Amino acid sequence: MPTSRLDQQLAFLCEIDQLKNVIRQSPLLDGRRKENSAEHSWHLAMYALLLKDYADEQADLSRVIQMLLIHDIVEVDVGDMPIHQMPSATLQAAQEELAAKRLFGMIPGAQGPELLALWREFEQGISADAKFAKALDRVQPLLINVRTGGGTWTENNVTLEQVLERYGPTIQRGAPALWERCEQWVRQHFAALEC
Amino acid sequence: MPTSRLDQQLAFLCEIDQLKNVIRQSPLLDGRRKENSAEHSWHLAMYALLLKDYADEQADLSRVIQMLLIHDIVEVDVGDMPIHQMPSATLQAAQEELAAKRLFGMIPGAQGPELLALWREFEQGISADAKFAKALDRVQPLLINVRTGGGTWTENNVTLEQVLERYGPTIQRGAPALWERCEQWVRQHFAALEC
Repeated sequence: MPTSRLDQQLAFLCEIDQLKNVIRQSPLLDGRRKENSAEHSWHLAMYALLLKDYADEQADLSRVIQMLLIHDIVEVDVGDMPIHQMPSATLQAAQEELAAKRLFGMIPGAQGPELLALWREFEQGISADAKFAKALDRVQPLLINVRTGGGTWTENNVTLEQVLERYGPTIQRGAPALWERCEQWVRQHFAALEC
Repeated sequence: MPTSRLDQQLAFLCEIDQLKNVIRQSPLLDGRRKENSAEHSWHLAMYALLLKDYADEQADLSRVIQMLLIHDIVEVDVGDMPIHQMPSATLQAAQEELAAKRLFGMIPGAQGPELLALWREFEQGISADAKFAKALDRVQPLLINVRTGGGTWTENNVTLEQVLERYGPTIQRGAPALWERCEQWVRQHFAALEC
């Protein structure tokens, strides 16, 4: 058991190395393999950095980036829950809450509770920062699917209506201007399938 | 060619997806495979978030995290340059500068030059933020090597003296308290090899 504050912090940083082995449903853009949750988190932080001006309300970029960096850390314990194969939302939330308590509980002092609170804020999706972060967490896989000829939509026989329903409200709520462009792509993608 | 500001920003975000295919020398902590530069960048941003109090000078956490998110993006064009197999530093710097201009040049408006300047600030390693970011960029692979029984040091027949010389000054400059702990691990690691 690490005893010093620094050693405890480093033990947490080593523990979350496992996020690099959590495989998501989305492919890389070149289709060579599926994306993992660590590199997905990096990419989302870059989305926030580039697209900060599209937040619906005044969002704090630093907090949004921190949220996105930590938003998937619970997957070290519970794995990725694909949007198109959702089990019980209540069960998932309970498992993720347990994982969050264990993982952020490894961090000494005030820092652990602070990051746990930030993770919960993201999950709740109510604050301006959380709404924008959640919107980006939908935009990135949507863009991957559009750019890879369907991606997880094709694999899961997802319809236009299901895409509009599963991505639309979350993106619309946090970044309406992004949803406007996303909706165009989505409709073009499904229209092309009918040709 | 994307024409709108948003489409140009998204083209950049898609271009840097390739960072997920740039393979570093360092292994994951479980040894299953080598780390890629995108997940490495995520991990470093988490190091900054957790270890911000160990910065030698007053560092701006938000800027440090942004630096670490973008610090390896040039590798999309030039690949990773392993610390223990360094070619000409001048040639490397010139290639990376070209890559930075091309990649950040994809971003419209003031945002491109701002991120290019932030990347150059990291490379120069002079500001308080850059010194701390560079220190973390040495701490993370050092910790991986210590925790994996030698990692890239063993693969490249690196000696104790070379480790102290290649990691010490950079970590010491940006985060002396971290170097104190790192040096203990490094010496323990090499002492154990002699037993």
